[in-house]
Amino acid sequence: MSYDALHERYQRIGHLEHAQAMLSWDEATMMPSGGGAARAEALATLVGMIHDLAAAPEIGELAEAAANEPLDAWQAANVALIQRRWQRARAVPTDLATALSKAGSLCEQAWRPARGANDWQAVAGQLDEVIGLTRETAQALADALDCSPYDALLDDYEPGLQQADVDPVFDELRAALPALIDRAIANQPPHSAIAGPFSVPPQEQLGRALMAALGFDFERGRLDVSHHPFCGGDPSDTRITTRYNDADFMESMFAVLHETGHALYEQGLPAAWRGQPVGDSRGMALHESQSLIMEMQVCRSRAFLDFAAPTIQRCLLGETTQAAQWRPDNLTRLAAKVERGFIRVDADELTYPLHVILRYELETALLDGSLTVADLPDAWDAAMRRYLGLSTAGDFANGVMQDVHWFGGLIGYFPTYTFGAVIAAQLFQAAKARLPSLEDAIRGGDFSVLLEWLRANVHSRGSLLPTMAVVAEATGEELGTAAFLRHLNERYCA
Amino acid sequence: MSYDALHERYQRIGHLEHAQAMLSWDEATMMPSGGGAARAEALATLVGMIHDLAAAPEIGELAEAAANEPLDAWQAANVALIQRRWQRARAVPTDLATALSKAGSLCEQAWRPARGANDWQAVAGQLDEVIGLTRETAQALADALDCSPYDALLDDYEPGLQQADVDPVFDELRAALPALIDRAIANQPPHSAIAGPFSVPPQEQLGRALMAALGFDFERGRLDVSHHPFCGGDPSDTRITTRYNDADFMESMFAVLHETGHALYEQGLPAAWRGQPVGDSRGMALHESQSLIMEMQVCRSRAFLDFAAPTIQRCLLGETTQAAQWRPDNLTRLAAKVERGFIRVDADELTYPLHVILRYELETALLDGSLTVADLPDAWDAAMRRYLGLSTAGDFANGVMQDVHWFGGLIGYFPTYTFGAVIAAQLFQAAKARLPSLEDAIRGGDFSVLLEWLRANVHSRGSLLPTMAVVAEATGEELGTAAFLRHLNERYCA
Repeated sequence: MSYDALHERYQRIGHLEHAQAMLSWDEATMMPSGGGAARAEALATLVGMIHDLAAAPEIGELAEAAANEPLDAWQAANVALIQRRWQRARAVPTDLATALSKAGSLCEQAWRPARGANDWQAVAGQLDEVIGLTRETAQALADALDCSPYDALLDDYEPGLQQADVDPVFDELRAALPALIDRAIANQPPHSAIAGPFSVPPQEQLGRALMAALGFDFERGRLDVSHHPFCGGDPSDTRITTRYNDADFMESMFAVLHETGHALYEQGLPAAWRGQPVGDSRGMALHESQSLIMEMQVCRSRAFLDFAAPTIQRCLLGETTQAAQWRPDNLTRLAAKVERGFIRVDADELTYPLHVILRYELETALLDGSLTVADLPDAWDAAMRRYLGLSTAGDFANGVMQDVHWFGGLIGYFPTYTFGAVIAAQLFQAAKARLPSLEDAIRGGDFSVLLEWLRANVHSRGSLLPTMAVVAEATGEELGTAAFLRHLNERYCA
Repeated sequence: MSYDALHERYQRIGHLEHAQAMLSWDEATMMPSGGGAARAEALATLVGMIHDLAAAPEIGELAEAAANEPLDAWQAANVALIQRRWQRARAVPTDLATALSKAGSLCEQAWRPARGANDWQAVAGQLDEVIGLTRETAQALADALDCSPYDALLDDYEPGLQQADVDPVFDELRAALPALIDRAIANQPPHSAIAGPFSVPPQEQLGRALMAALGFDFERGRLDVSHHPFCGGDPSDTRITTRYNDADFMESMFAVLHETGHALYEQGLPAAWRGQPVGDSRGMALHESQSLIMEMQVCRSRAFLDFAAPTIQRCLLGETTQAAQWRPDNLTRLAAKVERGFIRVDADELTYPLHVILRYELETALLDGSLTVADLPDAWDAAMRRYLGLSTAGDFANGVMQDVHWFGGLIGYFPTYTFGAVIAAQLFQAAKARLPSLEDAIRGGDFSVLLEWLRANVHSRGSLLPTMAVVAEATGEELGTAAFLRHLNERYCA
């Protein structure tokens, strides 16, 4: 059967993607700086080879023939995903794909020290090159797929998502959030700060204990340290990272819980389809929903902190305590503190979408050419003043240089964070409705109830269905902002 | 020019080899056990792709055309190396190359826990499969290259080395060593043991301090922990490993110094030829000479331990001391202790070659079929009794299962260890003759004198010349055992 030949070819692509994933993880966690140039070359070659394999004429022929063979639903979905990827790969010349990969690797490597030194000029030129190659790529995809350049990029991170879906959701959030933020800040209950310093080993021990409690399989994954927390590797070996702030243990703890949500999705993908497109995670919005359902919906709740408080105390203090600042009620208030700040990854649930909307506006403008890289810092400052009342003039490190995405060549990625938050709220509302004992289970440290529901309704489905269909089937409703806004109201403004 | 096209194609091979090297390092240092199956598949695919690229008909055509173009010595050597590799690659079907890679990865993964459990039966079947695939590979190479199967394997690790070179050297050592060992043990000066336990962080600090002193570039490399010490990665990013024994700090210290010797060779290879065969290390015998010149010739000497004693004391005790067992004279005696033991990697310079000769005899018999895997443990026991007077009956972990090589598919590799020792002695003898201040420099902690000589005479030459020519040019003599035996006499029997 043509299907079998197609499947076999994609196993090879899967193996090269394994290499790519592990080398990227290594670059961010282990690689000494002097290894950067060789690594960028090697990754670019892998990207080019994967691109060539995915774009090979035989893939198109085999997929067309396979589509006419008797296939089950998974096989049929796999063929459709392979065809879509084939079209995308053929639209972009290999030279352009490898040039973008290499420019992104090198720019990302330059960004790390430049951010530390608040040195915008050190990377502005390389960023301009990355944006230029991204525009070229987006245009080539748009021509082939008959869509807008930005939609062509969005589709790479969350297949099927379009600006026409993004704009109304962002309009609703733009309209609702500023008033919610004002109310939340005005109503904020008093809390006691917890003073550090906290050294790394106990923070790491805490992170590992909570990962294990949530269901992370350490036989198929790791926890390490990187400049920017992420979930890397692949379903066979899922590697999450964090960074440690000795003044605030919650920063790393919630980063670990967030990345653990991503990892549980990866570790729960259908093993029988490993390496095939239908066995992959569906898209980054659905992926982000899995990190945020853990971090935001579950782990910043009172029920979770009732469970976690003794573990937190034992790891960080060496014993449990009745001291007021360590009690679950105070921890819950600390975990739900609302503050207008500079940094997206440190932002609370209420202000986070505004950080994303800001980036969405700027990256669409970068892509259509109405904004240049040279003007980007000023545009960032203006948007920060507008949405959050803060100025980043001259402070590049906490402004336009805070996120790796654009420097690494990721444009069209940011909206998936907020779609993830919206999906997470709707999924968790449905889970609570269907699992009446869920809150008690969480308070008792039993996360298997939720994990089984997510495994059945999300993880085990791989890429069989579009994200919107996964959400609709799991929750009984089309995706909307209602559950998210209800959650924000209940947690922050009740 | 055809040469340029050939060069360009080999850059791609170099990039895939970078991926292969880093994934292999990761497998041994970082990978959780559950990631093993996917890693073995991915590595086998990479091996197959590298094999296909190296065996492509166009490589043969381009190399033939390039050989007729005006080339400098480096380019000409590069073309010759590419042609040799092309012939070897074409001799082995891709399916066989990937099957051996995968069987070796899986057998190596199974070996780790099996060795810990002293469970020979758990890996004997997989080892049999690996040996079978190795025999098939060796026969295919032998047919194509018109040599014996064992010579075909030797040639992969040390190009040009043949059994006809190995046998007379091993005969001389077989004849000389037993009497030297008897004399050394009888004449052994008294020493004071140093009792542990030594925790890992100070041992690691000591290792890093000595690596830095010898000239290891941490901007282009790392030190980590693995089951078995090795030097991995590539010249852009050279990664050495050790393991820590809390009862004996010297075990890890000398492992680190040994691997640092390997790493200095890698880091000193000619940058302009990175990724091309002529820019690679020449062979494993020459490689081993660089680890052994550091570990054995330099670092087990009184001059080195005069320098290192205060560093050792400061790292392990937190202060310097005059206590007798920590003084350089006692450290030197501990570092030159001779003992008949079970474990090759723990063996002293005098008994080490007997461990290698034993393996050489057994692996040549495995390859020609006169010894089966089922009979291997008994044959090992008999050889250990003959050469070292020790029995390993029933003790697989300290017998036939102690080394990873055969389980990972490396047959023909062991002789390079002893050729390395012989080369190291001859190189160091020449260096001392040409650099009269060398011993004083070492005693003063200045290793740049030796490193510059090695850079000029060995490292920077890459694979321009055969190993035997490198040795003859650097030392003014053909390779022989005289310097090695003189060194052993002076250090152990004086």
